[in-house]
This record gives sequence, C-alpha cells and structure tokens, in this order.
Amino acid sequence: MTTETDAMLAEAAPNGVMQTVTVPLGDRSYDILIGPGLLDNAGAHLAGVLPGVRAAIVTDTNVAARYLGTVTDSLAGAGIAATAITVQAGEPSKSFQTLETVVEEILDARLERGDVVIALGGGVVGDLTGFAAAIARRGMQFVQMPTSLLAQVDSSVGGKTGVNSPHGKNLIGAFYQPRLVLADTAALDTLSPREFRAGYAEVVKYGLIDRPDFFAWLENNWPSIKAGGTERVHAIAESCRAKADVVARDEREAGDRALLNLGHTFGHALEAAAAYDPDILVHGEGVSIGMVLAHEFSARMNLASPDDATRVKAHLDAVGLPTALDGMRDRIPDADAMLDYIAQDKKVTRGELNFILTRGIGEAFVARNVPASEVRAFLAAKLGD
Amino acid sequence: MTTETDAMLAEAAPNGVMQTVTVPLGDRSYDILIGPGLLDNAGAHLAGVLPGVRAAIVTDTNVAARYLGTVTDSLAGAGIAATAITVQAGEPSKSFQTLETVVEEILDARLERGDVVIALGGGVVGDLTGFAAAIARRGMQFVQMPTSLLAQVDSSVGGKTGVNSPHGKNLIGAFYQPRLVLADTAALDTLSPREFRAGYAEVVKYGLIDRPDFFAWLENNWPSIKAGGTERVHAIAESCRAKADVVARDEREAGDRALLNLGHTFGHALEAAAAYDPDILVHGEGVSIGMVLAHEFSARMNLASPDDATRVKAHLDAVGLPTALDGMRDRIPDADAMLDYIAQDKKVTRGELNFILTRGIGEAFVARNVPASEVRAFLAAKLGD
Repeated sequence: MTTETDAMLAEAAPNGVMQTVTVPLGDRSYDILIGPGLLDNAGAHLAGVLPGVRAAIVTDTNVAARYLGTVTDSLAGAGIAATAITVQAGEPSKSFQTLETVVEEILDARLERGDVVIALGGGVVGDLTGFAAAIARRGMQFVQMPTSLLAQVDSSVGGKTGVNSPHGKNLIGAFYQPRLVLADTAALDTLSPREFRAGYAEVVKYGLIDRPDFFAWLENNWPSIKAGGTERVHAIAESCRAKADVVARDEREAGDRALLNLGHTFGHALEAAAAYDPDILVHGEGVSIGMVLAHEFSARMNLASPDDATRVKAHLDAVGLPTALDGMRDRIPDADAMLDYIAQDKKVTRGELNFILTRGIGEAFVARNVPASEVRAFLAAKLGD
Repeated sequence: MTTETDAMLAEAAPNGVMQTVTVPLGDRSYDILIGPGLLDNAGAHLAGVLPGVRAAIVTDTNVAARYLGTVTDSLAGAGIAATAITVQAGEPSKSFQTLETVVEEILDARLERGDVVIALGGGVVGDLTGFAAAIARRGMQFVQMPTSLLAQVDSSVGGKTGVNSPHGKNLIGAFYQPRLVLADTAALDTLSPREFRAGYAEVVKYGLIDRPDFFAWLENNWPSIKAGGTERVHAIAESCRAKADVVARDEREAGDRALLNLGHTFGHALEAAAAYDPDILVHGEGVSIGMVLAHEFSARMNLASPDDATRVKAHLDAVGLPTALDGMRDRIPDADAMLDYIAQDKKVTRGELNFILTRGIGEAFVARNVPASEVRAFLAAKLGD
C-alpha cells in the first residue's frame, strides 16, 4: 500500500476497507482513520492534517523494532523530518522520570509549538506521549498511531493522558486531544493472542454499555474479528464511535463518562491485587472479570436478569478471557481484601462508593451510593467465605 | 479585618478599597479580588466560590514565615482543612523535580479532584503550583493568592503555568485557569523596594501596549502607588483588566497575546545574558530595559517619534528602574552576542524573528519578519561597536 495516495485511501472507504470516525469536540474535533496498512501511508495522512511540521516519534523498544522504520520512511517520503525517542517497553515507563526524559528529548530536537509529537505504540506509549505533548512548550500538536487493540479502541478516544504515581495509576496527567489517529488494523496481526483478547474485552464493553445489537454482532463475528479483515475494522470503528459518543457528552469526566468504567471498579481492584504484574493479570483480563461481576452483582440487586450475566460470561469464555475470581484466590482471600482494593481506586466522589451497574445488556448506568455491605455480601458469596 | 464578612468587603468596593476584575473566558471565567487585607479573609472568599472543599496550600520558605499562619487560620475559620506544602524560595524551585514533589504531596494528602490547590506566594510559587494543580488527578481546582506585585499584575491573569527546563525557562507547562484570585495589596508592603519596582515595570507595560491614558496616570501617581492605598489598588486592577482584555481575545497565544511580550524579547535576552542571576538582573528590570529598547528601535525604524522613547525612559528612570545596557556591558560585548541570546528565545515562529514594536505610547503591535540586520545595526549603535 505504500504507493497509495490519500485520495485512493479515501476511495477505499466505501468498500469497507477503511473507516473514518470523527470525534466531535468543537474546535478540538479530530478524525480516527481505521484500516489495514495505514502506517505505510502515515506521512501522507499527517501532511494532510498538519502541513509543514517536523515530528518527534515516541515509541518503545518492542514497537520500534517492527514499525519505526516504516513510519520514519513514510514521513520522510512526505517531507517530514522526524526524531525518534524510544522508551523501554512496559508499564514502568509510565513514570514521572520517563516523562521528563521524553519532554527533554522533544526540546533537544528543537521542535516548535506547532510541530507534532507522535505516539507509536500501545497504551503505555500513548498515555506517556500524550502527556509529554500536552506539557512540552505548554502544548504541541499530538498524533496517535496505536498498535495494540486496546490502544485503538480505548486510548485513541477521549484525550486521557498521564503517568503513574506511587499512590496509584494514572494519578498524574492531562486531558489532551490528538489532531489525528491512525489505527492500522494490520499491525494487530503481530499481537500475541493474549494481548488481542485483552483488547477485545474493551470492545465487548461498548456493546454492554449501550449497544446491545453490537454485542449480538460480536457474539457472532468474534472469529472473523480475530482473523482480520472488514469485521475487525468494523469492530474497532464501532468501538471508537461508541466511546466518542460518551466523551462528546462529557469530555472532562463530570458525569456520563463514568459509564466507560463498566467492569473497571472490580477490574482495577483485581489489577491492584495482582500488583499490576502482567504475568498474573493484564488490564483487559481484569475488565473481563469485572464486567461479569458487574452483571452478576446487578442481577443480585434485582436490577437485571441473571440470564444477561450468563450470556456475557458465555461470550467472554468463548473468547478465552478469564471470567471468574478463581485464578486470583491466593491474592484475594476474602471479600474484605477485595473491598480494600476497591476503596483505593480513585473514582471515589467525596467518600461515596460509585459503581457502573446494569439493567441488562446495553443498559448500563451510573449507580451512586452503592452500600458497601451489599458489595461485601456479593463478594463473600462469590468467594465462598 | 479578620471579623469582616464577604458582604462587608463587597460593600467596601464602591469606595475604591476593593476592586473586582472578571477574566471573561466562558465557562472558565473567574474573578480577581484586589484590595488590602484579603488574606485575612481568604477562608470566607474561598468557601463562597468552592463550598465544601479541602485544600493544599503551596508556598515558599519566605512567604510561609509571613502569611501561611494567617491563611491557614482563615481557612480553618471557614471550615476548610488545609495541608501546607512548602518549597524553597527562589527560581530553582521551578523545576521538574520540585513539581513531582509537590504533586506527590498533594496526592499524599488524599485530596480529590474537586478539592483545591492554593498558590500562596510570588511568580515562582504561582507557576509551579498552577502546573501541579493542572496535572494532579488530571486537573484539580486552583486558587491563587499572589503576594508579589509581579504575580498580582502578571501571573494572576492568563493561565500560564510551568517550570523551567535545562533548555530554557517555562518550556514545560500547561494553560490552566484559576477559579479565584485574591490579590492582597497590603502584602506588597513587605516587598523590598527593588522587588516592588520590578513588578511595576509590568504595570507600565500595560499602559505602553494600548492604554496611553493609563501610562499618563502612572507618570503622575507613581509615588502614591508605591505608598499604598487606593492608587495601588487601581494600578493593579487596571493592569489585570488590560491583561484580561488581551487574554480573552487569544487564550492560547495564537496571535494578539504576543503583545504582552512588549519589552520581553530584549528582556529575556538580558536575563539569559545575566545567567538568570537575580543579583545581576531580575525579570522586571530586563523588561524595563527591553521596553526602552523596543521604543528606541521603533523610533529608529521611523515607526514612532523619538520623543515617546524619551518619555518612557524618563518615567522608568524616575521610578529607579534600569533603562540602558550600561550595566550589562561585560556580559554583552557586542551586538552579535545579544542577537544570539535573542535567537534562543522560544518566541520564534518557524525561524522568523518576531518583535513587539510600537507606533507610539499605547500603540504597540506585533511585527513579523523583522530583519535581523536592522536589529544588529541598532544594537551596534547602542553598544558603540
């Protein structure tokens, strides 16, 4: 695809090869392009949106080996000079220290405020780079080239950037929107099956929040999404549209945006219990278990039918995602241990316990003031204590 | 004044004791209250704007000794619990490292996103604290209590926050607006005469940009402003109004906001030449010399009458501010040395040399593509080489 032009790519869209999702945020609106081979044409797309810029490409050691050459060459072909900044792969790079290094390297490259900082990689690179772009020269242009499924369906919409603190994950950061997102669906072919599944948990989430038809479509099309092709492009585009709808209603997370945390209150607690060790549990796996728990808890509270929880669990089981606490029993001995982890989560409003609960598939809602006693009783029953 | 209520302070305004300037930025609009004794009533004012919050007060070692007790007591009186975070006084605290310390201490205090971070101090504390407030939990409430004249007339309007980089001053930061500014004019009584004069240079700047009547008023009222009282309150309020007018037109510094850099291109070069050593030159002194040079250069370019430059120099001389390069000769041997410092300044748009020039007092404008050869010739004449 390296010889295709913008116009040719645009023509391809009606055939379902490429889709464009616009995130509508007024003067901060931007497009997400989704399709195979976008990294090969990164230069032409970038030059179309930000003519005349110079660039810094921030990536990690794993992604650099695969795609840095492709992107650098494509940018050079469009007349865009680029400096590469490579950080260590893995969550520890989401640190204040690495942030400083990246910002100083951007300044070293003598880039100006109108120049662009590109995040080429997964969620860690996206969050770190977006934050660096937000604060270098008090805000430079920012473009995302997400190479993981999780980053394509989650990090590419919403403008949340940040690093971790010893006090918790993502506690330091900024809301900062990209100017363009290039989600190359062919790049996902190099993900491990486990990484792909973990990202897919967030795709399922959008169906469960408010798109029951999408969830049904996912139940029927998971094998094709995994294999690649137009179903994969559609699943990612629909996820981005779903998230964009929520974010457009509530950019700064004052209300509705909390819906995106479906499965995340339990999920974050599980990640904390696993000491954020990806060998034990990755984010998407925590969300998978968390979504099942949220549906089961909703059923226990007589908000939803138990059949919905069964159906959610069945699909996630079919995908190969974890759906129960069994594997975490040594780290979560009882309900109180889990409640302690939940209470540490930052999504607490003046001490109240908030949850995303559901009235059924595609009918999630923000529940405020959920009694901790009910959560404890539910968890105790699950854990058999 | 500790027994006065909000209502009583509001009543005082018509008599000129307190003035309120509203910075009009849509849903980010906020008020600057200006008058003597505001720190004694900080709690009541804060509770009026942000009911029910908890607070972190960030200050420096010098200011803590004078005002931390006053503010903490006033907050406690209004039912606001506050944690104090004290940094070393001086420019070195505007560092990435101190930023991390302040953010972590805010998180240590277990403040939530709706709680408030207060900057109590001069420009360094304001810039550092505003940046910390912008990134802790991706943005907390922010209130400024500026205690220097420079901070009251400059940092309190415009939302620029940040820290320094080895590559230059203020290269890392965010645009972040406060919810309220309390400019206690009585706090300025404890400034050294030199600090007061340095802040006053920025007051003069607003007259020179687009308020010729204000400049004339300043020429006549400088002694009263220095002494305190209603003239001081008026000079600060008028400065805040002037800056607010510019910022409201151009919040993110895309165009007109550059006018605020009148005197700053030369001024920043002088500060760099002095290695940012406050024993040699402080910011306001650089701006004072810079404003005279900008008027003299404009006269040389036949844009303005030489009489205007003479008048500007006369007033700044009367105040006791430096107005010529004489004291810097050992650090600026020739015109090229000065041009090198100018070229390092970040306010360069794609390599062009931009200046704020003037057609006369109160008629400043943004000049793009100023030929470096003209600047060199002007400086060579001034320096006699």
